[in-house]
Amino acid sequence: MKQRVFQITVPTRGRGLYEFTGTVEQHLGETGLQTGLVTLHLQHTSASLLIQENADPEVCRDLERFFARLAPDGDPLFQHTTEGEDDMPAHIRTALTAVNLSIPIVEGRLTLGTWQGIYLWEHRYQSHRRQVTAHFIGE
Amino acid sequence: MKQRVFQITVPTRGRGLYEFTGTVEQHLGETGLQTGLVTLHLQHTSASLLIQENADPEVCRDLERFFARLAPDGDPLFQHTTEGEDDMPAHIRTALTAVNLSIPIVEGRLTLGTWQGIYLWEHRYQSHRRQVTAHFIGE
Amino acid sequence: MKQRVFQITVPTRGRGLYEFTGTVEQHLGETGLQTGLVTLHLQHTSASLLIQENADPEVCRDLERFFARLAPDGDPLFQHTTEGEDDMPAHIRTALTAVNLSIPIVEGRLTLGTWQGIYLWEHRYQSHRRQVTAHFIGE
Repeated sequence: MKQRVFQITVPTRGRGLYEFTGTVEQHLGETGLQTGLVTLHLQHTSASLLIQENADPEVCRDLERFFARLAPDGDPLFQHTTEGEDDMPAHIRTALTAVNLSIPIVEGRLTLGTWQGIYLWEHRYQSHRRQVTAHFIGE
Repeated sequence: MKQRVFQITVPTRGRGLYEFTGTVEQHLGETGLQTGLVTLHLQHTSASLLIQENADPEVCRDLERFFARLAPDGDPLFQHTTEGEDDMPAHIRTALTAVNLSIPIVEGRLTLGTWQGIYLWEHRYQSHRRQVTAHFIGE
Repeated sequence: MKQRVFQITVPTRGRGLYEFTGTVEQHLGETGLQTGLVTLHLQHTSASLLIQENADPEVCRDLERFFARLAPDGDPLFQHTTEGEDDMPAHIRTALTAVNLSIPIVEGRLTLGTWQGIYLWEHRYQSHRRQVTAHFIGE
């Protein structure tokens, strides 16, 4: 049984979903694991990790539209506003989704479904360089 | 330290919550693990994995009512509509919940609380055969 | 490779967010692990585990305000009401967030971001003693 840890940087250009499945698969290849588990942890509180459909890009845009309506920017409900009108909605979106994901590895591959991709969901307007830790364990 | 992976099929008969705690416990018994971790990953983007109360069935029905109001079928907000009026709400529900779960194993048992059950939440109207990968590690 | 499991009790004094990052770090120290993974599982269906900002306490209060508006207590939509008007909203909040979290360990430390804290989110009005299982694996 062995472990490997990689630090992944996902650069973002403002709000939206950024797929990085390929980066995780590449690191998996470097580990040489055939059976195991990868756990991804995002080190931020205003962005999320999400597994979603990567076939029709309209799905990502509809996700964005829905969350924009659910947690509107500049909502007068919020008191934590010093970092901008998009900041508290970003924390809300993060709470409603996730910052870590765990995916089994079988026969040297991630056990993602046919249409599943791994996304970094940026919730802030501005560009960021988001940090994800990827922990692999197995053999 | 050892690992085992099982593929679990959960047949669904349309929208609703389907408990499969027993299947996970059965596979745990087959592994013989006393201490460890099981990670469940659902290979779909229009259904979820959820740990919820399995005592009063009204809880599951209220969850269903709440999510139906939160992400209504046929909402004109959505552009991704070619697969039916329930498709984009299914993706939304999946984003709001989870597709993977990790549960520690102690003394040969899942460390679920007294009232916790493991559910597959089908978000589509039609029947499906949903695929869950169960990865066990421990000793 | 080794494992350790700890049972953590988080006492709550009604609805709100209770940080227990320090308790997890203390147990990590006891394991002596340098590289690994910790998985936390909450054994309840009316409270959540959440990683959120621990800098400005207003963030936690805004999270509370948002979820109180999203899933209002005493909502006539709900049928599961025998345990009080806050009970079904508590189940909803739990479904919308999470009951388990997995965080990689690198160089003997949790790979939390600068502003990330680990919280128990109590969704019921009354005080509880909430149980969290912490499973460590690594070396």
